Amino acid sequence: MKMNMYDIIYKKREGNPLSEEEIRFFINGYTEGSIPDYQAAALLMAIYFQKMTPEETYFLTDAMKNSGDIVDLSSIEGVKVDKHSTGGVGDKTTLIVGPLAAACGIPIAKMSGRGLGFTGGTVDKMESIPGFRTTLTEQEFLDQVKRIGISVIGQTGQIAPADKKLYALRDVTATVDNMSLITSSIMSKKLAAGSDAIVLDVKCGKGAFMEDLESAEELAKAMVNIGNAAGKKTIALITDMNQPLGKAVGNSLEVIESIETLRGQGPEDITELSLELAGYMIYCGGKAHTPEEGRNLAEEALTGGSALKKMREFIAGQGGNPHVVEDFSLFPQPSYSQTVISEEAGFVASLDARRIGMASQHAGAGREKKEDDIDLSAGVLLSKKVGDEVMPGTPLATVYGNDPDRVKKAAEEALFAFRISKEKPEKGPLIKKVIQ
Amino acid sequence: MKMNMYDIIYKKREGNPLSEEEIRFFINGYTEGSIPDYQAAALLMAIYFQKMTPEETYFLTDAMKNSGDIVDLSSIEGVKVDKHSTGGVGDKTTLIVGPLAAACGIPIAKMSGRGLGFTGGTVDKMESIPGFRTTLTEQEFLDQVKRIGISVIGQTGQIAPADKKLYALRDVTATVDNMSLITSSIMSKKLAAGSDAIVLDVKCGKGAFMEDLESAEELAKAMVNIGNAAGKKTIALITDMNQPLGKAVGNSLEVIESIETLRGQGPEDITELSLELAGYMIYCGGKAHTPEEGRNLAEEALTGGSALKKMREFIAGQGGNPHVVEDFSLFPQPSYSQTVISEEAGFVASLDARRIGMASQHAGAGREKKEDDIDLSAGVLLSKKVGDEVMPGTPLATVYGNDPDRVKKAAEEALFAFRISKEKPEKGPLIKKVIQ
Repeated sequence: MKMNMYDIIYKKREGNPLSEEEIRFFINGYTEGSIPDYQAAALLMAIYFQKMTPEETYFLTDAMKNSGDIVDLSSIEGVKVDKHSTGGVGDKTTLIVGPLAAACGIPIAKMSGRGLGFTGGTVDKMESIPGFRTTLTEQEFLDQVKRIGISVIGQTGQIAPADKKLYALRDVTATVDNMSLITSSIMSKKLAAGSDAIVLDVKCGKGAFMEDLESAEELAKAMVNIGNAAGKKTIALITDMNQPLGKAVGNSLEVIESIETLRGQGPEDITELSLELAGYMIYCGGKAHTPEEGRNLAEEALTGGSALKKMREFIAGQGGNPHVVEDFSLFPQPSYSQTVISEEAGFVASLDARRIGMASQHAGAGREKKEDDIDLSAGVLLSKKVGDEVMPGTPLATVYGNDPDRVKKAAEEALFAFRISKEKPEKGPLIKKVIQ
Repeated sequence: MKMNMYDIIYKKREGNPLSEEEIRFFINGYTEGSIPDYQAAALLMAIYFQKMTPEETYFLTDAMKNSGDIVDLSSIEGVKVDKHSTGGVGDKTTLIVGPLAAACGIPIAKMSGRGLGFTGGTVDKMESIPGFRTTLTEQEFLDQVKRIGISVIGQTGQIAPADKKLYALRDVTATVDNMSLITSSIMSKKLAAGSDAIVLDVKCGKGAFMEDLESAEELAKAMVNIGNAAGKKTIALITDMNQPLGKAVGNSLEVIESIETLRGQGPEDITELSLELAGYMIYCGGKAHTPEEGRNLAEEALTGGSALKKMREFIAGQGGNPHVVEDFSLFPQPSYSQTVISEEAGFVASLDARRIGMASQHAGAGREKKEDDIDLSAGVLLSKKVGDEVMPGTPLATVYGNDPDRVKKAAEEALFAFRISKEKPEKGPLIKKVIQ
């Protein structure tokens, strides 16, 4: 019996699980173009309503992984560990945990993306370092990891092209928010990226895709199961994203905050999360017997200065000016800034991460469309976070950028992000749960 | 706020009813091509799962009706009545009720389609009459209805192009079987076709799209509501389609059976259904006070010969040879036939309409693809129907065609359609329900 896409759509519409062969038929046909967008869209909507079993989700992930290149890191000795965040506002942890874990002997060979939305992606952020090259040849990339222990570059080749094509379609057909589709999208790329173990940071809260703990946990479990089923040790931390992480949101602003954190002077939340994530990476990479031991090693690397040294080597290795770690004036400088002032007295009761993200994007730090340029110096620097006491006139945040109108608009948005109340709010834990 | 298709898909996906403006935006954008197939496919699947309210279905029908030309029959005096069947095997009633109602003074100005599937459509069937023209100019069409009282031609212009485009998409995305989509597809074309009243024949049973009475009733009610809401008196009969209607399935075979029925020598079921439908048409057209009175008038037209006379005028009016009503040898003749014989003794317990339809298509009477030619002489002539007694060797049906291999294959299929049992089966009523 010849397989055809109509039968596959119908089967899923009726709530029946698809076989591995049917899923592979769909992914291969869609990637090569023999299955049209409209049939894929109908299937995606049927999946949205009927869901997929864990088995189907695994088959989907595997088929998407195999739709393109698989990165071969086997020439690098040791257990290569990857880290992935589901995305939040002010999340610059890659730039911190990379050097931390590398300083503890974990090889970090990471491909990272550009960004759509509130700020650029990790690759965009790093490009705010003068001279820094995010495009290396495969050989340069592998050599740097062997020599220095860490390299982060932009995605090369065709990593999971099926995901790229499907994601673009989901984005315009209201079929993004399905657990199996999200899981397979993230994990297909991670499994193709060649590392041996994966630490996932699943964001949960008002600034994240998963707003409640229950759905964040569901996503975390699905990803951990798939990673482990594919033979890669996978652990997920579910972490708070009700307010931005750290105080900097932007591109150069976040690199600066990362360096400050590696100098031991970062905000408490970003420092804490980075040490935890690095601890799990060190544990997964076999350099510690427990995550706690891993965290202790990470703390030593931070306080002893070896992580900052690794950051300097990492930057220099990719052609960047290593003096940026001592001299922030080397970063691109914005022409305009506007400070947002509290109008009342009290405590910051909540700080809407999404609104701060929007402000950052308005200021020029993020792209609205793929073709947009981003302003590497633009963004928002928070002065106060949830629980901090304020008076009328206390600065809450400063918006930076090169377009005065955009900065003004962004400042208005930033002010709306703050809610001030008379009582000091309770703060929830930063790390809500670990799934392994 | 500018409307966009993403929001419309999302809204429906979440189970919210769409507004008239949103439905119009979708239909207009999809028809003109500014909304792509993949977004339409996602919306259709969301509609499949979340359904549409009666209001939404009305708006959808209206938007589809307005996507193309609206036929103007206002120059024809009297109440023009249209008739539509949801489709079954052996359904040639248009060719019988048209002359019956016209003979009773109801103007019949009908556009009919070609067919995909078991046999051709009404237009294909009529082309088996030598010389018959199914393509007339608008003026010729109107003039003939004014002069003779009946004309049936192929669809001209752009009747509900939105439906044409949407139906093609539904067909390949497993989104055909939704009540609102079926309703709007049928009714948009009927409302655009210009008649003042509509009698619907909703088929129900194993050979029909609606297999059970409940869903047939749901569809009938939805269509009647929409017709009446649009200001056209609409009545639906729900009629049996567990076995083929009449004994002839094919193109010329069905025209011949129609003429036999108008001569008073047709099979009981087709005669009965035609008189009932014509009765409702005469009633809707204001030529009778009740459907019963309408039926009596139709019976008089049948027994008195005025309906057969009308058929002759109708054929001659469109250039066909009117002598076909007395000489069936004028129809195209098939080169091959094969008779299917009963292997057992008993009664015909069931006669699978779909299988007989398939046999007819295999013999060459129907198109598989739009471009296919059809064999006007091919088809199946049933000798026995449900309830008839048979012996080993009793002929059950004869298959006709011009390709001996196809005829042979069709004969095998036809035999499988018959189930013989020892007990005489109960027969259900032909007309199951009337919805008005």
